Amino acid sequence: MTKNYINPLIIQRADPQIYKHTDGYYYLSASVPAYNLIELRRAKTLNGLAHAAPKTIWRKHQTGEMSQLIWAPELHYINEKWYIYFAASKTTEFDANGMFQHRMYVLECEAVNPMADEDNWVEKGRVVTPIDSFSLDATTFSWKDSLYYVWAQKDPDIIGNSNIYISKMANPWTLKSDPVLLTKPEYEWENRIFHVNEGPALIHHGNKIFLTYSASATDENYAMGMLTIDEDKDLLNPSNWHKSNKPVFTSDLGIHQFGPGHNSFTTSEDGEKDILVYHSRNYTKIKGDPLYDPNRHTCIQTFEWDSDGNPIFGTPTAYNYE
Amino acid sequence: MTKNYINPLIIQRADPQIYKHTDGYYYLSASVPAYNLIELRRAKTLNGLAHAAPKTIWRKHQTGEMSQLIWAPELHYINEKWYIYFAASKTTEFDANGMFQHRMYVLECEAVNPMADEDNWVEKGRVVTPIDSFSLDATTFSWKDSLYYVWAQKDPDIIGNSNIYISKMANPWTLKSDPVLLTKPEYEWENRIFHVNEGPALIHHGNKIFLTYSASATDENYAMGMLTIDEDKDLLNPSNWHKSNKPVFTSDLGIHQFGPGHNSFTTSEDGEKDILVYHSRNYTKIKGDPLYDPNRHTCIQTFEWDSDGNPIFGTPTAYNYE
Repeated sequence: MTKNYINPLIIQRADPQIYKHTDGYYYLSASVPAYNLIELRRAKTLNGLAHAAPKTIWRKHQTGEMSQLIWAPELHYINEKWYIYFAASKTTEFDANGMFQHRMYVLECEAVNPMADEDNWVEKGRVVTPIDSFSLDATTFSWKDSLYYVWAQKDPDIIGNSNIYISKMANPWTLKSDPVLLTKPEYEWENRIFHVNEGPALIHHGNKIFLTYSASATDENYAMGMLTIDEDKDLLNPSNWHKSNKPVFTSDLGIHQFGPGHNSFTTSEDGEKDILVYHSRNYTKIKGDPLYDPNRHTCIQTFEWDSDGNPIFGTPTAYNYE
Repeated sequence: MTKNYINPLIIQRADPQIYKHTDGYYYLSASVPAYNLIELRRAKTLNGLAHAAPKTIWRKHQTGEMSQLIWAPELHYINEKWYIYFAASKTTEFDANGMFQHRMYVLECEAVNPMADEDNWVEKGRVVTPIDSFSLDATTFSWKDSLYYVWAQKDPDIIGNSNIYISKMANPWTLKSDPVLLTKPEYEWENRIFHVNEGPALIHHGNKIFLTYSASATDENYAMGMLTIDEDKDLLNPSNWHKSNKPVFTSDLGIHQFGPGHNSFTTSEDGEKDILVYHSRNYTKIKGDPLYDPNRHTCIQTFEWDSDGNPIFGTPTAYNYE
């Protein structure tokens, strides 16, 4: 039996990732409103995450390349070690092209409990890519004994903010193959206000692998797109991926759910149901820069699969707290 | 029947105030980790506050006297208007005496729903006191057709950070009597690391009025003290108040509840039980300035009254989320 989940689940956590580990805990990582540190929390139930006391495990540097705008940390467990992938910038200013200046970085922890002590986390440095440009939202995916890195990055030759790439990894902080472009903003719903593909997340189901991502500006236009590949095909060949021409998850203006996206996936406590994890806003009138309006909230909802084995995400769940 | 409350109730909200209004909602206001804005949230149950989407109702100024370190906002409903009392500084720096430089300010809202629109809130300015010094943590208390202002302030002639004062108000943002000193740090438990009396809260029960406050540094030494007065006595005569020589609520090291305090009071959903609202930390090892470690969490617990009509706060409740 699947429990009823309370939405919004976590107040003021954007870019949420929930990882269910073999130790029986759900771990939450997400962007914090001040973008100044990385924290983890854990609970044995998804609803429990709303009350779980966070532990700061890394703080931004005073100066230099990891000193500003710490975005979208993701926790991964690879070869019995913990890793956190996060984007950081040297400045809050835009570059000459009007872009943020983030790059991707990796932390490693060998302790069994990743929240035991901040001192257990060590910096493994920047994930170097052939092009040195705005990079963010990296995730990893283990498949057929290979580790893949999937992330968003600016290509100076492609209009817009970022596209989604995949590469094999030599180790959890080093690429070993050239980045392969999987999707760039093409459709109208990917180019509203800003040309954006970001926030990739992967899930395997049946004989397919699905890659969801988020498109357009992070206001009510923000929406989730999806790529699909047969599980037997080479993930590094872009022609093996099919891109949906419509978004798979969008705002529901009627229930004041605006800009759902930057999703991840987990499963219910009993393992029976797949769960979509995302953030959304409940109002659109924002004073000043939306980046500094803290009210993107983490929501979760179960989703089903159709007879062809494709996900049916439905629409955002209305708030249901009392 | 009193519901079971989940602790910690609200993650990363310090100096919590929960106000139960006649509209059936509990309203929460508190310091946010970035100390950069004032937000409100509301829910029909106390547990619901954990999931209630906040609304920003005021943002710190870019420069000037309300531009830094927005602390401890409290929501009050006086003569059918809403007021928020908050401390703000012109700088994050200490003054020549090593003190923060906060003063107290007031916002007013005439709308029925205080969360309807940020534009409904107007600045009423600073609460002027005879001495121009570090001021914070103001609350109000309506008693026998008079409105009282109770707050913490530095007196240059008294050692330490702040003492607790009371005054009558001419209107919700103006004093009409001289401040009367009710308590200053005197006992050992009020002078640990820092000499502090702050965070006053008032509650009427039986034929007495109780004023709780918080003392010492905001680490595991932070503790609640209490003053008591007979309800028939003049609140402005300090000799009418009895000060407890021991703290009434302290850390419980065994269950990792450190520095409980900066409390307020509310009642259970059915109105049958009084509830203590406070913040505490669950660890003491903090890197850097504790002010910027966001992990003071809001906790709540019911409390009882003894046969003499005095409160029995007990000890902090252990975390009980799953």
